[in-house]
Amino acid sequence: MWKNGLKPYDILTGEDVEAIHGQAMNILEEIGVDFLHDRARQEFARAGMKVEDMRVRFDREFILETVAKTPAIFDLQARNPSRSVVLGGDNVVTAPVYGPPFITDLERGRRGATIEDFNNFDKMAQAIDQIHCAGGTTVEPEDLPLGSRHLDMVYSHLRWTDKPFMGSVISSENARDTIEMASIVFGGRENIEKTPAVLSLINVNSPLRYDDRMLGALLEYSEAGQPVIVTPFLMAGAMSPMGLAGTVAQQTAEALAGIALVQLIRPGTPSVYGSFLTNTDMQSGSPAFGTPESAMGIPTILGRVNFVLHAAGWLESALLASYEKFIIDVEALRMFEWILTRGLPVDEEGLAMDALREVGPGGHFLGAEHTLRNYRTGFYRPWISSTENFDRWNRFGARTADVVAAERWKQVLAEYPDPGIDPGIDEQLKEFIARRKQELGDS
Amino acid sequence: MWKNGLKPYDILTGEDVEAIHGQAMNILEEIGVDFLHDRARQEFARAGMKVEDMRVRFDREFILETVAKTPAIFDLQARNPSRSVVLGGDNVVTAPVYGPPFITDLERGRRGATIEDFNNFDKMAQAIDQIHCAGGTTVEPEDLPLGSRHLDMVYSHLRWTDKPFMGSVISSENARDTIEMASIVFGGRENIEKTPAVLSLINVNSPLRYDDRMLGALLEYSEAGQPVIVTPFLMAGAMSPMGLAGTVAQQTAEALAGIALVQLIRPGTPSVYGSFLTNTDMQSGSPAFGTPESAMGIPTILGRVNFVLHAAGWLESALLASYEKFIIDVEALRMFEWILTRGLPVDEEGLAMDALREVGPGGHFLGAEHTLRNYRTGFYRPWISSTENFDRWNRFGARTADVVAAERWKQVLAEYPDPGIDPGIDEQLKEFIARRKQELGDS
Repeated sequence: MWKNGLKPYDILTGEDVEAIHGQAMNILEEIGVDFLHDRARQEFARAGMKVEDMRVRFDREFILETVAKTPAIFDLQARNPSRSVVLGGDNVVTAPVYGPPFITDLERGRRGATIEDFNNFDKMAQAIDQIHCAGGTTVEPEDLPLGSRHLDMVYSHLRWTDKPFMGSVISSENARDTIEMASIVFGGRENIEKTPAVLSLINVNSPLRYDDRMLGALLEYSEAGQPVIVTPFLMAGAMSPMGLAGTVAQQTAEALAGIALVQLIRPGTPSVYGSFLTNTDMQSGSPAFGTPESAMGIPTILGRVNFVLHAAGWLESALLASYEKFIIDVEALRMFEWILTRGLPVDEEGLAMDALREVGPGGHFLGAEHTLRNYRTGFYRPWISSTENFDRWNRFGARTADVVAAERWKQVLAEYPDPGIDPGIDEQLKEFIARRKQELGDS
Repeated sequence: MWKNGLKPYDILTGEDVEAIHGQAMNILEEIGVDFLHDRARQEFARAGMKVEDMRVRFDREFILETVAKTPAIFDLQARNPSRSVVLGGDNVVTAPVYGPPFITDLERGRRGATIEDFNNFDKMAQAIDQIHCAGGTTVEPEDLPLGSRHLDMVYSHLRWTDKPFMGSVISSENARDTIEMASIVFGGRENIEKTPAVLSLINVNSPLRYDDRMLGALLEYSEAGQPVIVTPFLMAGAMSPMGLAGTVAQQTAEALAGIALVQLIRPGTPSVYGSFLTNTDMQSGSPAFGTPESAMGIPTILGRVNFVLHAAGWLESALLASYEKFIIDVEALRMFEWILTRGLPVDEEGLAMDALREVGPGGHFLGAEHTLRNYRTGFYRPWISSTENFDRWNRFGARTADVVAAERWKQVLAEYPDPGIDPGIDEQLKEFIARRKQELGDS
């Protein structure tokens, strides 16, 4: 993972932030949030909140006190301890794209994703240093039965990577399976309760509604002390108002309501305020990505995000994962890494007065002592980009970014460093999966 | 032009900035700068600086006192007063690419640029609101004789746009011609001496050297009170050290030396500290653009740059201008404009509590009153991008950005709004050009 030493960049004044926070509190008190799960409403009722039908209306003091029980920073263990990460503080952790049912690559084109693609994405995540977490549903393996594919997905993360991974959130049952499989690998449930090993993504069915399946998973993970990222799903104009400030207020209300529920279930369990915020194209109703609205709503590096999902491989509003796009995105991650780890050091070597003295007016620095000391590692070296001039680039095959990336992902997979797995543990995982598939009727 | 209300983003501490400034002063005092023009050295000698051969070594007090005579903010007039701009303060002014000898478009491919291309770039700059200044050598019209083509270029700016423009800097003679032509259009030299009408780009022949032709132009423009942008030309590793801090120190030393010369010639003449800073690919010696080094060296919007040259049309390290890239870049400018002009307003309309009340949990905002009030202009609308999903995009022709941009620039030129020119003034310009071409042997 990276340390983000850049100063946070605020586009809002303190007064504006207060106004948005105040509105979030008003939303929670006055409008409330629907929870489509009995136990969730019971927990809130027991805590003294007003519950009518599905609707829970909150007390702002309750929200602030309850949410305050969330730790500001926590460890997430990987089965290889050197891959464990810390979420919170200055840390930045990256994970691949999450959710696409389709996959593409330059040779085979766009098609339904399979478990082989899923395994391959795990292997790329394992092989590439700039991806810190293997992710969750990197692609949806549509060749496997819906009811039990989560077992194969969790197995893939545990077998083909030794980095932290994300759990299944389709239902409470799936969450339970994930926790059991993690318990096998991490030496028992007590070990993952002590230090969490499964991070999961809980989306809010915005506006202001949590559905029963997501709540089932949230409750299961919270009981086991495993962190969830509570992420409102906001396309402003459709799932939130066209006002960006109101959208951020709604996002805050939604996320805090979910985090409060986690704290009611098991106080002190880590959880994360997630953001997925862009806008709707109001002419067509389509989601619009890469807009100024999303740039203002969710700045990532200067906004000091701690966990960056979808960091590699996203295309087509997350309907499509791409092998080549995975690699192209890693080039951007490598540049962010360079900026965060190198920065602009103002020290003797950075100031290079010796080189300036040596070269003087009208010379060039290519042969200076300082350059000879630094030329191998002093500047960022592109991974797939080219600095050839047009003639040379053309002469050497006019290879566009997708072509170079296609070559690169094949090489990454060919050289994939299998982390291995203890045969006894692997056996237990496979026995667990076989038994569960039989129970689920998918064996 | 735009107002940049975003807070400046500092990647350096105040102490680091002081260290870089201190080194810039050391460079000026100890190493000095070569000025390959007699009058420039005479001016510095008269001001008490140490001059040996071509080299001038400076006194830091002299530099700071002299540079301080530069106004912090100034007007640059356009022949249409509503197009005049202010440089400095919160203002952001954009101009197209500068310098390429080659041009490309999707139909005709890569080729030498002509005066027709030059005229077309002026017409696009005129037609597109996000380009505030017509620029200078947008492309080098290689079909015209080298000795007199500056006359046709300046005429093109003055005839086909009524926005501010940039002058010729090839020699003092060219600068004089530019000033005379501007004087014809702006009602006499006294009018442009009162409020400048020509902005010019003076590059330093880095490291630490000003050549005679650039100095000739600088002296000519300074005498006429016309502003120059003094821009060191830095590819770190070749024209400056591999240390980025040292590179910025060198840039500062070079720019301040040139600005001091302007102030010796005509105190109070506006001038601008320019930056062109990227790094060399140390394996091949090629210039490298889009690197983390350049991202740290010259942040544009968050670094609060006032004049953004090369804002549209740049390809291939500025060897190549592109019609389609011009349009694609304008899409990015439109988004910056949106962020700068709209921002994230935290007011009643932005907070949209009425919409949240109206819709409530589980609904959608597409039909809310607030949405109906805002949907036409509330979100950024892409100019060439598409938010269609893949199927629809594919069905409607799978038009990539370059194809859409090609259609768009043709439409922009077809609908180009000719600002016209007073026939008497046009006649004077043409007479001047004819006389000068005869003198230059290019008639």
